[in-house]
Amino acid sequence: MTIDQLKDARIEDLERFAELIRKRIIDVVSQNGGHLASNLGVVELTLALYKVFDPRENIIVWDTSHQCYAHKLLTYRWEEFSTLRKLGGISGFNSIKENALDRFGAGHAGTAIAAALGIEKGLKLLGEKKNVIVVLGDGALTNGETLESLNQLKSLNSKLKIVLNDNGMSISKNVGALSEAFAKLRTSQVYVMFKNLVKKVLSASPTGKNLEEELRRFREGLKQFIQGIDFFEALGLKHIGPVDGHDLKLLVELFERIKDYDYPVVVHVVTQKGKGYKPAEENCVFFHSPPKFDPESGEPVVREGWLSYSDVFGETLVRLARKDKRLFAITAAMPDGTGLRKFSEAFPDRFVDLGITEQSCVTFAAGLASAGFRPVVAIYSTFLQRAYDQIIHDVALQNLNVIFAVDRAGLVGEDGPTHHGVFDIAFFRTVPNSRIFAPCCLQELINVLRSVVEMDIKGVVAIRYPRQAEEGNFDDMWKKSVLIDPFRWEIVREGKNVAILAVGTMVQNVLKANLDATVVYVRCVKPLDETMLERVAETHELIVTVEEGIISGGFGESVLNYLNRKDWRRSILLIGINDEFVPHGSREELLKLKGLDPEGIRERVLSLLRKEVGLCGDQAGIWRP
Amino acid sequence: MTIDQLKDARIEDLERFAELIRKRIIDVVSQNGGHLASNLGVVELTLALYKVFDPRENIIVWDTSHQCYAHKLLTYRWEEFSTLRKLGGISGFNSIKENALDRFGAGHAGTAIAAALGIEKGLKLLGEKKNVIVVLGDGALTNGETLESLNQLKSLNSKLKIVLNDNGMSISKNVGALSEAFAKLRTSQVYVMFKNLVKKVLSASPTGKNLEEELRRFREGLKQFIQGIDFFEALGLKHIGPVDGHDLKLLVELFERIKDYDYPVVVHVVTQKGKGYKPAEENCVFFHSPPKFDPESGEPVVREGWLSYSDVFGETLVRLARKDKRLFAITAAMPDGTGLRKFSEAFPDRFVDLGITEQSCVTFAAGLASAGFRPVVAIYSTFLQRAYDQIIHDVALQNLNVIFAVDRAGLVGEDGPTHHGVFDIAFFRTVPNSRIFAPCCLQELINVLRSVVEMDIKGVVAIRYPRQAEEGNFDDMWKKSVLIDPFRWEIVREGKNVAILAVGTMVQNVLKANLDATVVYVRCVKPLDETMLERVAETHELIVTVEEGIISGGFGESVLNYLNRKDWRRSILLIGINDEFVPHGSREELLKLKGLDPEGIRERVLSLLRKEVGLCGDQAGIWRP
Repeated sequence: MTIDQLKDARIEDLERFAELIRKRIIDVVSQNGGHLASNLGVVELTLALYKVFDPRENIIVWDTSHQCYAHKLLTYRWEEFSTLRKLGGISGFNSIKENALDRFGAGHAGTAIAAALGIEKGLKLLGEKKNVIVVLGDGALTNGETLESLNQLKSLNSKLKIVLNDNGMSISKNVGALSEAFAKLRTSQVYVMFKNLVKKVLSASPTGKNLEEELRRFREGLKQFIQGIDFFEALGLKHIGPVDGHDLKLLVELFERIKDYDYPVVVHVVTQKGKGYKPAEENCVFFHSPPKFDPESGEPVVREGWLSYSDVFGETLVRLARKDKRLFAITAAMPDGTGLRKFSEAFPDRFVDLGITEQSCVTFAAGLASAGFRPVVAIYSTFLQRAYDQIIHDVALQNLNVIFAVDRAGLVGEDGPTHHGVFDIAFFRTVPNSRIFAPCCLQELINVLRSVVEMDIKGVVAIRYPRQAEEGNFDDMWKKSVLIDPFRWEIVREGKNVAILAVGTMVQNVLKANLDATVVYVRCVKPLDETMLERVAETHELIVTVEEGIISGGFGESVLNYLNRKDWRRSILLIGINDEFVPHGSREELLKLKGLDPEGIRERVLSLLRKEVGLCGDQAGIWRP
Repeated sequence: MTIDQLKDARIEDLERFAELIRKRIIDVVSQNGGHLASNLGVVELTLALYKVFDPRENIIVWDTSHQCYAHKLLTYRWEEFSTLRKLGGISGFNSIKENALDRFGAGHAGTAIAAALGIEKGLKLLGEKKNVIVVLGDGALTNGETLESLNQLKSLNSKLKIVLNDNGMSISKNVGALSEAFAKLRTSQVYVMFKNLVKKVLSASPTGKNLEEELRRFREGLKQFIQGIDFFEALGLKHIGPVDGHDLKLLVELFERIKDYDYPVVVHVVTQKGKGYKPAEENCVFFHSPPKFDPESGEPVVREGWLSYSDVFGETLVRLARKDKRLFAITAAMPDGTGLRKFSEAFPDRFVDLGITEQSCVTFAAGLASAGFRPVVAIYSTFLQRAYDQIIHDVALQNLNVIFAVDRAGLVGEDGPTHHGVFDIAFFRTVPNSRIFAPCCLQELINVLRSVVEMDIKGVVAIRYPRQAEEGNFDDMWKKSVLIDPFRWEIVREGKNVAILAVGTMVQNVLKANLDATVVYVRCVKPLDETMLERVAETHELIVTVEEGIISGGFGESVLNYLNRKDWRRSILLIGINDEFVPHGSREELLKLKGLDPEGIRERVLSLLRKEVGLCGDQAGIWRP
């Protein structure tokens, strides 16, 4: 079925089709990885919405858009869906470059209402009458940009229809007063009675005439003992619901009803994350965005003995916090993704999850730091872009001491361009007096984090590490961990002609490139290890920098700048991400695509050598072990 | 009077002292410029608050902190206040470096609650019992970070006391559903009755026992016909008020009352911007942050025939919008500051002020652009830092066409480090496919903006210009304006030995440096005019770049990067802002301080010449007209 058949489909057909959609999603996601639980939760919602509001004639904007799979399947991408998140295949998010019905792309939360308001304004100026609809997860309600927009709807005379998909989760359990109110509401006896009554009303009056009035009356009843439910009304928005988001008949009924509203309305729909797939219903945090798994059992395909950088970060912080009472951990809705779950259990008093509020997280950290604490803000590189101003204005300008655990730095793989962490080196470099560290392996992540904490490195301290797993045993590594001078670079291989300065884990790829070059592990991106840089510059013909980040404003340029100041005038090769966005695909494929894999680096260095020193073939410094 | 005397002062003494504070503020601001209207509005509020909550024993965080003058006067800075905003003098904002009682600095709106939550959490962990109080303007209520924090208070078990200083303005008239609700409330008959009744209750029961209950009952009455008033309660916050913010007795009474609350409370205080100074009461937009003025008449000291870049931007956009129906202007609470007032009057349908919501402004623009429009987002450079992620995620990644009018780029002068626009070149450079233009004078601002619009330059387009006025007549300049290739650089003076690449208005200072150097006007920072750069590189011994922005990641580094790629191996001198924050002072003083004035540039270039070419004295290329 595609959107063409939806209009005339009977509810029973839709119900059957919902199961097919679920099956397709589970089949593909179990193979390709991806967002599962949220997508299973909105199957009925999407079908009902598109039955009433044809996306070819109306504008539908999905917030964050990690719940767009049913949308993609309905909008002519059933077959292609098998290529989900694969290099050259379809994106796991809405993308206006992929399909015109992906009306507005997103990967970060909170942008949909603002975008829809812009689109609505444009349509109005063009005299086009179309419904503009936003589907918003309740997680995005914690986010400032969403809240800004909600406050604007009325003064902009908007007629936006907002479908609030309330599943009680951001990625992990949701936070904030609104979500507490919604949670109470979902679990309350009154809501159960309410659901049953709505059904009765519907069956008693098949035209559903009284539906809306009934909904209103019952919500009035709810209000008396559930705070928060008035929130939307306080902002001048009509608020309908909550209704069961898996009841296709009811949803269709309701959407028909709001079709001609000429004022903004919030339709509050309660859905279950992972709906229809038992393992995901039971563990929707893991199944928010699982890697490959066995569709029968729901068991993930795990590599025993492998640890992610996030795991190691979290474990290390737990160990350090036992000794250092000033340590405090802050996450923006990612206690699991950032590896902070254990910390939150071990030190509940020294941990907060502030929801999808990167800005507030950073300012909160600054406040804590001003009270003498040592906050660690763990946020993915791409999301930390949201707090660029707060890093400057609240932390750096005030000389406060905040550690930024910049997770998912570099190319993240299948989540694609909205999620790649390629700007952090460049944007942290602009921040006066910032320090940027980039450990080269799990062991070094422990060493660097330990040293930063135990040696009390001050100011804006960023520690960046990739979305990557490596073999290792945490206890062993912890035992082996040592205090180091985190500002120092290290020569990890002596070679000739060329010195390659490799930032963080790029050291691994450079070593694998098998070149007879000196390889320097750049542990600290800013400030530069000037002693080492000068030493290397004096003793090598050519210098190459390698970083997993954008070249504009990145590490390579800072090396150029320094050597220029010191009148060291030779060619330097900058390897990194050029002035472009990187698509989705596996991390390995993308590194290869951008020439950051061992072969790519090898090729670039060899051709430089040929050009500069006239060496070729064996002479060209091919390293033999 | 200082905070030491406040506790025992009688209300009548405070009332008299309030007038002294007002006089001091008017005297100094009329001489030094500064924030006037907001500061006059909170004199009683500050006195009452500090009488009840001694800032040495409690934590008071002022949001945005442009209303901190009474605070500064009370906290031992009465004499120093004459140095307000002067180089080496006291800051116009709270600054933790200036005084420990400036508990948390700010210049951007919306950070106070998040900071206070962090501080409160820290104090709790330390076992320190102190009241933590935030003073928040209603303008900051439009801002996402504020809204995020308000939603967090309850789940964090905060006991924060928030004093909502409701004066109905951001800087210009406030926007959004909440502010509409407050406006209705302030002007309603019921509020007037309410105010009188509160007085009666107070005088009838001098201990004020029933005050709170009375307040509650009356607000219940108000609720029925004023939407929005439930907003705080929907978030689980107790909401007291509105009360008259100039009634010292009432305020003291109220603050005493909330002293021991152990839950979060919002005290809603209505104040008048400019209170007690007629010119400011009547024109609080102008007197938000006036330049020097005559304290008697309130007349500003204006320079006839001078125009600011903001004026010229606004006028130009009006002219262009007459022909081009796709143009749409967006401001974040700055219709006046950005020069968009005329545009908003000429094209009310193609203009929005979205409040202090830089993030939403940018995403809204992206939405409009996706509907085929040509939005122009006019935001000060420093505030645009808030939307760094949206520029990447919503505009650039989707290849949408949005023009950013980056006002106040460079050193803004007296507002100091929270307001200097020194990061925009660097952060825009990191954005793939961005274009950054920097006109060198008013005429060129018209030429560049016209050309960008009429030649339909696509993508992320930033046009940066300083906080500066120059002589000129708009009509004349408009007539003289021409279409140019905005990507092209121009040689504005031919010289020898040295080529100086000057970004935007830095051309003016470089020309005044009177050097026998080739001066290139860098109209476009990104992409580089490679043809011109190579030509200049081939024909000159030395290259100097001059930009009014941070060097890390800035224009100079991009020149280094390009020339390195082309194997042009000579020394290049990068002039700009080093890795540090710049203090407050006049724009001229700060340019001098940072070596960006004509003399500074001259000195740097001459010493380079001496070093590199061994020239000195007359030979050193001193240019004679």
